Amino acid sequence: MARLHLHLLSDSTGETLEMVAKAALAQFDEEEVVRHFWPMVRSSQHLDRILDEFKAKPGLVLYTLVNEETRGRLEERCTALGLPHADALETVTLALEQQLGQEAQGRPGRQHRMDDAYFARVDAIQFTIAHDDGIGWDNWEEADIVLAGVSRTSKTPTSIYLANRGYKVANIPVVVESPPPEALYTLSRPMVVGLTTSAGRLIEIRRNRLLSLNEQTQTAYVDEERVKAELAFARRLFADNGWPVIDVTRRSIEESAAAIIKLCQERRAREGVPASGPKPI
Amino acid sequence: MARLHLHLLSDSTGETLEMVAKAALAQFDEEEVVRHFWPMVRSSQHLDRILDEFKAKPGLVLYTLVNEETRGRLEERCTALGLPHADALETVTLALEQQLGQEAQGRPGRQHRMDDAYFARVDAIQFTIAHDDGIGWDNWEEADIVLAGVSRTSKTPTSIYLANRGYKVANIPVVVESPPPEALYTLSRPMVVGLTTSAGRLIEIRRNRLLSLNEQTQTAYVDEERVKAELAFARRLFADNGWPVIDVTRRSIEESAAAIIKLCQERRAREGVPASGPKPI
Repeated sequence: MARLHLHLLSDSTGETLEMVAKAALAQFDEEEVVRHFWPMVRSSQHLDRILDEFKAKPGLVLYTLVNEETRGRLEERCTALGLPHADALETVTLALEQQLGQEAQGRPGRQHRMDDAYFARVDAIQFTIAHDDGIGWDNWEEADIVLAGVSRTSKTPTSIYLANRGYKVANIPVVVESPPPEALYTLSRPMVVGLTTSAGRLIEIRRNRLLSLNEQTQTAYVDEERVKAELAFARRLFADNGWPVIDVTRRSIEESAAAIIKLCQERRAREGVPASGPKPI
Repeated sequence: MARLHLHLLSDSTGETLEMVAKAALAQFDEEEVVRHFWPMVRSSQHLDRILDEFKAKPGLVLYTLVNEETRGRLEERCTALGLPHADALETVTLALEQQLGQEAQGRPGRQHRMDDAYFARVDAIQFTIAHDDGIGWDNWEEADIVLAGVSRTSKTPTSIYLANRGYKVANIPVVVESPPPEALYTLSRPMVVGLTTSAGRLIEIRRNRLLSLNEQTQTAYVDEERVKAELAFARRLFADNGWPVIDVTRRSIEESAAAIIKLCQERRAREGVPASGPKPI
């Protein structure tokens, strides 16, 4: 296996660069790639200290440096040290410069401005935490999305993920013996989405859950007939109410969330509201 | 103001592309940029339907398409339609191809593989939700990070954000009248971090909070002397225990989180554990 030091250097939080590196690395066979993170690099002194580390562990340098001076210095020094380097935002920034007829301004961290969209996103997280697992159903009308599903269909992590993208999410467990509050059937603003999965997968996940809790595994919670009946009950509930359904069996949280966001956008497009969403970016 | 349609097309969730677009757009003056999201485009038929939408709303096409065939088709059609287009992952993918001596494999969505790191991240979210606001302190030793701070210093959203990045986080409010559980002083695994902010900013945030709850604003919660005493009490608690402190006054959640992750990495480097962290990507 090749061993590669991958230096990720940013003058902001480095999150975009991490995601770009992750997406790109996923296209290669597993190699021994050692990642080094260098966020918040905003001065020449800071940069110079890091360049010493690059010398000690030479490898590929990827960066998102919007400040032209810092970027120029980094590129110059990498070239002098013989280190391969690439600007992860270059292609998109150049394309935008051409289309907008403006030069990029080179002010780091501007995507983290605490503007209205930012505070709306923080509100969405607070709302979602306060409306997990059926709590606070009297406020459901304020939600953007209400997720319903039987136990262990990823309602909580999916809700949290969507909250981070700016959506106010509530979620409610579907339990055969205990019907959901009436409020669920009269919502107008939120989109209600059903989450389902295959019985086999659900039993597997629940078995692991019970094992990790050190509990007896032969309960109704993992009994095949009971689990099938539970899923059938949920499917009927979703169908009776015309709620769209996402099957999470082979989907990661991110993929389920992308499918839910798409449903929201389609609904908005149908109802004539601009398709760009409440705070999509 | 120039009006630009920005089409963001991906064969996966589109999240990386959204972040790249957001980071790049932040470098330009506010223009009327209308964003259109096209996630999960994995077939030629799907692509052809979207190309019709591009014709109706021509603009800049940005994409993360790892499948070579779909990507080739998109580029060819964009050229034929006269639409400017750019591959947001190209620079980084090319640099990795050169360094690893491999070609990219063109399988979409591989960064969302449900591997160990994925399940560890879902666990981190579950843990963090279950340890918000001082709950579950008997499990704090399992956390990666414990955040302490007075009311409204962004403990919850910062915790959730860190959980999404794979860290198990607990948080505890610092309240003058009610000391934190003894468990806080004997933790060895988690890094305890104090959050603080300026009195002026805290009063402003709390006033807004009370207003939004329709409550009387002249309480101790927003009294300047009381708030200053509260912050001084918290600062002393952090100093007495040698906990690092993050001032969130002018920081967004993402920036506070980046600073906390940096503290974790520095602590690991000091203690000889590999600097790459538990599951940093």
